[in-house]
Amino acid sequence: MTQNAPARKQQMADHTTPLIRNCWYVAALAGEIGRELKERTLLGKTVLMYRTQDGKPVIMQNRCPHRNFPLSKGRLDGDNVVCGYHGMNFNTQGQCVFMPSLPNAPTHARIASYPVAERGPLVWIWMGDPAKADPALIPQTPWLSDPGWKTVNGQFHVKTNYVAMHENLLDQTHFPILHAKTGIGTPQYSKSKMEVHVEGDVVHLYRSLLDSPPPDIYGVPMRLTDRNVDRYSDGYFASPALHYAHARIVNKEPREGEKEEYRFTITHIYTPETQGSIHYWWFNSRDCNLDDADADRFLLESSTTAYQEDVDALNWIQETVEKETEPFEELSFGPDRPGIAMRKILLRLANEEAMAAAPATQESAVAAPAVQQPAAA
Amino acid sequence: MTQNAPARKQQMADHTTPLIRNCWYVAALAGEIGRELKERTLLGKTVLMYRTQDGKPVIMQNRCPHRNFPLSKGRLDGDNVVCGYHGMNFNTQGQCVFMPSLPNAPTHARIASYPVAERGPLVWIWMGDPAKADPALIPQTPWLSDPGWKTVNGQFHVKTNYVAMHENLLDQTHFPILHAKTGIGTPQYSKSKMEVHVEGDVVHLYRSLLDSPPPDIYGVPMRLTDRNVDRYSDGYFASPALHYAHARIVNKEPREGEKEEYRFTITHIYTPETQGSIHYWWFNSRDCNLDDADADRFLLESSTTAYQEDVDALNWIQETVEKETEPFEELSFGPDRPGIAMRKILLRLANEEAMAAAPATQESAVAAPAVQQPAAA
Amino acid sequence: MTQNAPARKQQMADHTTPLIRNCWYVAALAGEIGRELKERTLLGKTVLMYRTQDGKPVIMQNRCPHRNFPLSKGRLDGDNVVCGYHGMNFNTQGQCVFMPSLPNAPTHARIASYPVAERGPLVWIWMGDPAKADPALIPQTPWLSDPGWKTVNGQFHVKTNYVAMHENLLDQTHFPILHAKTGIGTPQYSKSKMEVHVEGDVVHLYRSLLDSPPPDIYGVPMRLTDRNVDRYSDGYFASPALHYAHARIVNKEPREGEKEEYRFTITHIYTPETQGSIHYWWFNSRDCNLDDADADRFLLESSTTAYQEDVDALNWIQETVEKETEPFEELSFGPDRPGIAMRKILLRLANEEAMAAAPATQESAVAAPAVQQPAAA
Repeated sequence: MTQNAPARKQQMADHTTPLIRNCWYVAALAGEIGRELKERTLLGKTVLMYRTQDGKPVIMQNRCPHRNFPLSKGRLDGDNVVCGYHGMNFNTQGQCVFMPSLPNAPTHARIASYPVAERGPLVWIWMGDPAKADPALIPQTPWLSDPGWKTVNGQFHVKTNYVAMHENLLDQTHFPILHAKTGIGTPQYSKSKMEVHVEGDVVHLYRSLLDSPPPDIYGVPMRLTDRNVDRYSDGYFASPALHYAHARIVNKEPREGEKEEYRFTITHIYTPETQGSIHYWWFNSRDCNLDDADADRFLLESSTTAYQEDVDALNWIQETVEKETEPFEELSFGPDRPGIAMRKILLRLANEEAMAAAPATQESAVAAPAVQQPAAA
Repeated sequence: MTQNAPARKQQMADHTTPLIRNCWYVAALAGEIGRELKERTLLGKTVLMYRTQDGKPVIMQNRCPHRNFPLSKGRLDGDNVVCGYHGMNFNTQGQCVFMPSLPNAPTHARIASYPVAERGPLVWIWMGDPAKADPALIPQTPWLSDPGWKTVNGQFHVKTNYVAMHENLLDQTHFPILHAKTGIGTPQYSKSKMEVHVEGDVVHLYRSLLDSPPPDIYGVPMRLTDRNVDRYSDGYFASPALHYAHARIVNKEPREGEKEEYRFTITHIYTPETQGSIHYWWFNSRDCNLDDADADRFLLESSTTAYQEDVDALNWIQETVEKETEPFEELSFGPDRPGIAMRKILLRLANEEAMAAAPATQESAVAAPAVQQPAAA
Repeated sequence: MTQNAPARKQQMADHTTPLIRNCWYVAALAGEIGRELKERTLLGKTVLMYRTQDGKPVIMQNRCPHRNFPLSKGRLDGDNVVCGYHGMNFNTQGQCVFMPSLPNAPTHARIASYPVAERGPLVWIWMGDPAKADPALIPQTPWLSDPGWKTVNGQFHVKTNYVAMHENLLDQTHFPILHAKTGIGTPQYSKSKMEVHVEGDVVHLYRSLLDSPPPDIYGVPMRLTDRNVDRYSDGYFASPALHYAHARIVNKEPREGEKEEYRFTITHIYTPETQGSIHYWWFNSRDCNLDDADADRFLLESSTTAYQEDVDALNWIQETVEKETEPFEELSFGPDRPGIAMRKILLRLANEEAMAAAPATQESAVAAPAVQQPAAA
């Protein structure tokens, strides 16, 4: 894999591969969007986020089509947004319905209003071809809203490309090294056999580890730090937007008041802000001891510490990659197989989008700017 | 109008259009230039400004032709400037008259000394083809020096291209929206008919509003906030460097001690620092109540507040335009007619300069560096 | 000499000329390298520096060949360095000898371990073609380790290209101007005849000044400020990495306890960090009054002050050169002859390297990324 060597044929995605647009990404946590206008950059585009009076999330292009004023500096008028420069008023579909200086609304003036969908704590957005925005493609994350689960969560802004972050999650051989201090992964776990399955655009990891002490991140919230358990783990690169990992832990000789089986799900959500930065949200969910505030605190602290180690590492890698301008080969090894599978999927998706987009772009490039006839002002 | 799409034929100037060089710009306020060497960047070039012992302003290229040392880090020697590196001494015409390490002055060593002209509080500069630097082309701004007028003024450094600033001034439909809090423009004024005249490279706006209450910016200094007046307004895009607006206000039934007619002139001076930043000076002048310190204070505060709103808006637009890299069309409407007329003038001027400059640039590119024979040191 | 005009044939090196790689540069002072991992950027490459348990300096490429993690964020394991991401373990030759996730070390995984050589207080590095890294090419600087000499030293990080710094040292006509306050160079010295010899890739200046008061930088440490001396000076552009100047001062009528002859050597070491920045170390050495702490203090202060003037000047020039984007000719004069000779040498060396490197680069560009077979993890 080289950087700064565009002529060379790439075999897998890297930090230079164009972002995938035909994909549902998380734009924000549900709680981040309200009746205030909020700006965020997603996939290199600045967007405006707010809720209608009925509470529905709206995400639109954040530049007025008239003179590029950022609509997030304007104001809400009911469910509509009003540009702060000349007062152009757009409805939730992005169509201009009023302009104070014109006798009739210029209804051909439109901005993109992106398909959105709220699912529990997540607001998803589709910024690619609207015709392909099928809500059925939104990944299912029921554990995040199920009252039978308890979740702690956090977020990071990471100055790195999202491909390296996904690879980090598909690669468990870094646990004992990068996370030596935080103790993610036990020595036994690192040596357990891992199955890798590529199913369509999904990469699935499976690993089991029998009769072994659980790591604290499971043992503490289960209150089973004193004995061996059986552990079955599945990890999924589910989409460019999402990686999640399920763990099922079997308590072989449950005592009074204990469960026979415990489940944990860790959800990592990446939304590229730009080619070189990410909005990163993580969720640590469990189906046991839901009211245990000590467990909440422990999981929040230990997760934050461990993910910060990943974030630091990926920031450093991006800095290193940007510091040197000469092409540089990456060496890959057997344990990189899941990451390579994911990177080949991303490269294929990017190439498919590039081929589909090429003619459309040319068409838009020859469109003349529209000028409406003067109004009798 | 697109950005990042240079191949596409443009119909009017935008933030990517090359700056106009054959034009008188304001380099500085008269009071900014003295016997200290002062550096400023104008039209992308670093210049050196000072006054001779007789008080004449001198503006020269701020790089020594020998090893590029910024002359502003040197010192004055009478009317001449001395480079701080090797002591090359340049007269006010930019010709080297002495170099300590050479027996004879290298009189072929020259730097550009720009045509300048001081007019009241303004020092104008011509950075284009010197052969075209006709002082008769300097716009007249007599109200800035006439003792019958009183002026308050201020300045901004704006991180935006100057085209958008000029368009902002030619567009009065943003008054009730962007300036909603500061109350520039009354509702009646916004609805009054506007005439637009394009006269050569000048765009002239005319508007009258009869029997209507004056906005505070006129009413307070006239002390006529309690009644209706007739108001006649002219606005001029006078050159790439200057926009000014005259208001004549008729006091229909003057009481004792009041004038029958009041005049106001607001002057906006833009000098591109770079393609994406401006030196902006403004002046608010009146012909009434010249000694009214309260009026001065009111005008200073209200003007500063209102122009800050414009500056903020244009900064936000520039940020938005720079954030996204894809081409983007602007939509234009009837009220944009004056701005579009101005932008077509600027595009034509830029194209004319590009055609005139092309051969000259090629010639200079083949000139060999001059090397004088060694002196007996 | 033009900038931003790559098509024009250059006659001498300037700030745009590619850096010379086949050259011994100083990577660090000996005292800067120890058993901690230290990162530094040299010639545009990030390197890792440490010492083995035996105290030998090691300098290696600071990016793991696996996933570009900066090895300086890892740790030492005896004499080896361990990547902080997946634990790849490299010996001092840069060869991977262990990877925790693989059954056998991937011995084809290698990083560059640069030829280094410690000479007194200096650790030299060769970052060009390793086959040409002849230690005999390391410039001799015996005065820096000889117990008969006393040295004070300092360092700067300069935001300028190294060519202009070398030219500054070869040009003594700037002494009375740029260093007017610090009094480097006496008026008599400036007028003394200078011989310039170009010997291979070395530029040698020679100047003598008889029966003249010494400048304080020599007079104070000699304690001979009260009389005239004879002074013989040699300056050497010794390589892209090094400039040094020897002064021999003859005390014509030595009094009791005085020497007949005094020697001073000033050493300037430049290592390009990037195309536009330098690590700069200087050393002021004398063979007299070795225990004179007042002389040490005086030399440290006066040298720091004077070199800061050069550093400021070159920073300003680089800023000026970067501010304007149009091509700009440099004028050169007789006294610039040594600098021009040096700049022609640098241009020739750069051109030779470019021609030699061209085919090698193409080969590496077609190499496929190596993927080792999966290990039974």
